[in-house]
Amino acid sequence: MSTITLITDFGLNDWFAGTMKGVILSTNPRATVVDITHGISAGDIRSGALALAGSYHFFPAGAVHVAVVDPGVGSQRLAIAVRTARYVFVGPDNGVLSFALARERITAIHRLANDKFFLPRVSTTFHGRDIFAPVAGHLSKGIPIGKLGPRLSNFTRLHWPQPRRTSNAVRGEIIHLDHFGNAITNLDESALDGFSPSACMVLVKRKVRCPMAPFYGAVPGGKPLAVMGSSGFLEIAVNGGSAARKLGLKPGHGVVVRIR
Amino acid sequence: MSTITLITDFGLNDWFAGTMKGVILSTNPRATVVDITHGISAGDIRSGALALAGSYHFFPAGAVHVAVVDPGVGSQRLAIAVRTARYVFVGPDNGVLSFALARERITAIHRLANDKFFLPRVSTTFHGRDIFAPVAGHLSKGIPIGKLGPRLSNFTRLHWPQPRRTSNAVRGEIIHLDHFGNAITNLDESALDGFSPSACMVLVKRKVRCPMAPFYGAVPGGKPLAVMGSSGFLEIAVNGGSAARKLGLKPGHGVVVRIR
Amino acid sequence: MSTITLITDFGLNDWFAGTMKGVILSTNPRATVVDITHGISAGDIRSGALALAGSYHFFPAGAVHVAVVDPGVGSQRLAIAVRTARYVFVGPDNGVLSFALARERITAIHRLANDKFFLPRVSTTFHGRDIFAPVAGHLSKGIPIGKLGPRLSNFTRLHWPQPRRTSNAVRGEIIHLDHFGNAITNLDESALDGFSPSACMVLVKRKVRCPMAPFYGAVPGGKPLAVMGSSGFLEIAVNGGSAARKLGLKPGHGVVVRIR
Repeated sequence: MSTITLITDFGLNDWFAGTMKGVILSTNPRATVVDITHGISAGDIRSGALALAGSYHFFPAGAVHVAVVDPGVGSQRLAIAVRTARYVFVGPDNGVLSFALARERITAIHRLANDKFFLPRVSTTFHGRDIFAPVAGHLSKGIPIGKLGPRLSNFTRLHWPQPRRTSNAVRGEIIHLDHFGNAITNLDESALDGFSPSACMVLVKRKVRCPMAPFYGAVPGGKPLAVMGSSGFLEIAVNGGSAARKLGLKPGHGVVVRIR
Repeated sequence: MSTITLITDFGLNDWFAGTMKGVILSTNPRATVVDITHGISAGDIRSGALALAGSYHFFPAGAVHVAVVDPGVGSQRLAIAVRTARYVFVGPDNGVLSFALARERITAIHRLANDKFFLPRVSTTFHGRDIFAPVAGHLSKGIPIGKLGPRLSNFTRLHWPQPRRTSNAVRGEIIHLDHFGNAITNLDESALDGFSPSACMVLVKRKVRCPMAPFYGAVPGGKPLAVMGSSGFLEIAVNGGSAARKLGLKPGHGVVVRIR
Repeated sequence: MSTITLITDFGLNDWFAGTMKGVILSTNPRATVVDITHGISAGDIRSGALALAGSYHFFPAGAVHVAVVDPGVGSQRLAIAVRTARYVFVGPDNGVLSFALARERITAIHRLANDKFFLPRVSTTFHGRDIFAPVAGHLSKGIPIGKLGPRLSNFTRLHWPQPRRTSNAVRGEIIHLDHFGNAITNLDESALDGFSPSACMVLVKRKVRCPMAPFYGAVPGGKPLAVMGSSGFLEIAVNGGSAARKLGLKPGHGVVVRIR
């Protein structure tokens, strides 16, 4: 139980993310701290939740996952730790943990209330440093989650847009644009069950037609495609280019998989 | 003594910061290297000094802090190591260490002159790799600072703008814009002693009026506020937005706290 | 053999680079993972190869170097591991390893074919996570390279532009612009053998004349210079500024060193 992962919207140009690591190492000098990303858009809770859901299960059992996208810091929003069969998750109770937790078997939810596990002085603007980092450090040392504060019966969940199926089509939407300009949709394998790639085409924004292809290079350079992506969701991509830029894509745009 | 922190203006798109870590691990394979930031603006010594001052004291005692914002690399500027009661600081003697050192009890200042602790071949453009990284590695292994070179009696200090107080106001200025667009000022708690938040208002750039608030969400979304920030300085912020962009703020702009 | 370095074009705003670290730590919890850079331009194999060549030899012997700039992921391009006298290199066989390997004594080249060392499920779009990360983890634990797949006799090499010499001049070109706007050329010390800095001047883009100088500050602020850079190549720089921006430089632009 000594790997601690970090997801924040703190960016990398200030000292905020690095300071969290100082606090963690001061609490548990043997912790291995891994940055998943500090590049979540400021206050974008849903993107933080997606980053966590796409990555957490590749870490060793026992890892403590910390996600701090926290526009409500200092207000009455709760801070929580959630234990599952394999991991512990720590963050504000604003939904940032919810996409990951939807896939996990939850064994305990606790409010972070015991200030014995916080820094001696807690600011109103940086709970990543003052609460979440030291709590993660203590958890990685094996402190029982029950010591952190009272048990809760639930946590905040973000809305996940559900795909809609008809007999010959599945309708979904774009939920994330990645660094390469690939557009990740909400259409996973179960949503597309029975829709054979070779028998289907994909319509994006009601006008761009893309073939379903097994990998980027299966279509000519500069051409769009739909591919089952590494996070388990259908992605709209352009071979050797940015689909986001070339096709003008944004989260929320419609994507329809249709039998030809 | 095995944590080594790094602050540089090298950015993350080249191999420079990573190479420093290679040199450190070649010198001390057991070192834990922590990036505080490599995103300091090129040559911006003051921003590097602020990043160090805002973060160093959250690290375990014994840490070696390396700050390399070094536009004078290769010239006659000195390279130094400074031991304090809790840490060792390493960097060019251009002021980048000075804001942190102003808060520390200094026990020794030494010039880096003994090339036995440098890489065998020292370039004229990358002392981060060739001098500061190997010196930090050796210090983290317990090499006495006195072996690095002759003792110095002093080091270079950057100017810190002092707040000015009158009976009913304190005048300061913006010293840093962070990733969220919050504007950190030079007004710390001692400068504001006796100025109760509930009895004061804050005037920015002689025209923008902000209430003093305990946290971001205490004012409506999109509205400006002044809040005692996590680094111990008054900050100008906008709830859910960027004060820098929304109010057109820059370092050097005036901030006045006034009794209403 | 427990340091693993990473060079990718995955950026830092998604969860991709972090996920590779999760896979590595799940394979070898004792590995020390070091980011060299994840900021290679998307699909820019040559820049990835330069970053690796400029940094790998500063790491401890036994390090496993992973470079994933992989626009052909999922296609028929091979995945390889190459053992040299001091290191192991892992990546797609598209040339990204070739500039580093040109400086190494190679002892074995193997194709990555044994899926026992991959993640159980291999995507078609993210071999960094599914193949290269677990293979690197296994190699760092001491798995013999021969177990990874069949031996190969060769690997893909990128073109390296050769300098051209005449009796009184050496002609080269810009190969990389770094974070500071310094322009790294293909002219190394052997190419400039016999061309004494004090007797030469440098002509960039057929029109900008630069003196050869020992360090940035040896010319007035804002003035261009040519300096032997930290990677062993002549660089075009501007003291205190960006040569790339100030002189409008791009990779491919000509640089001529001439005896005055």
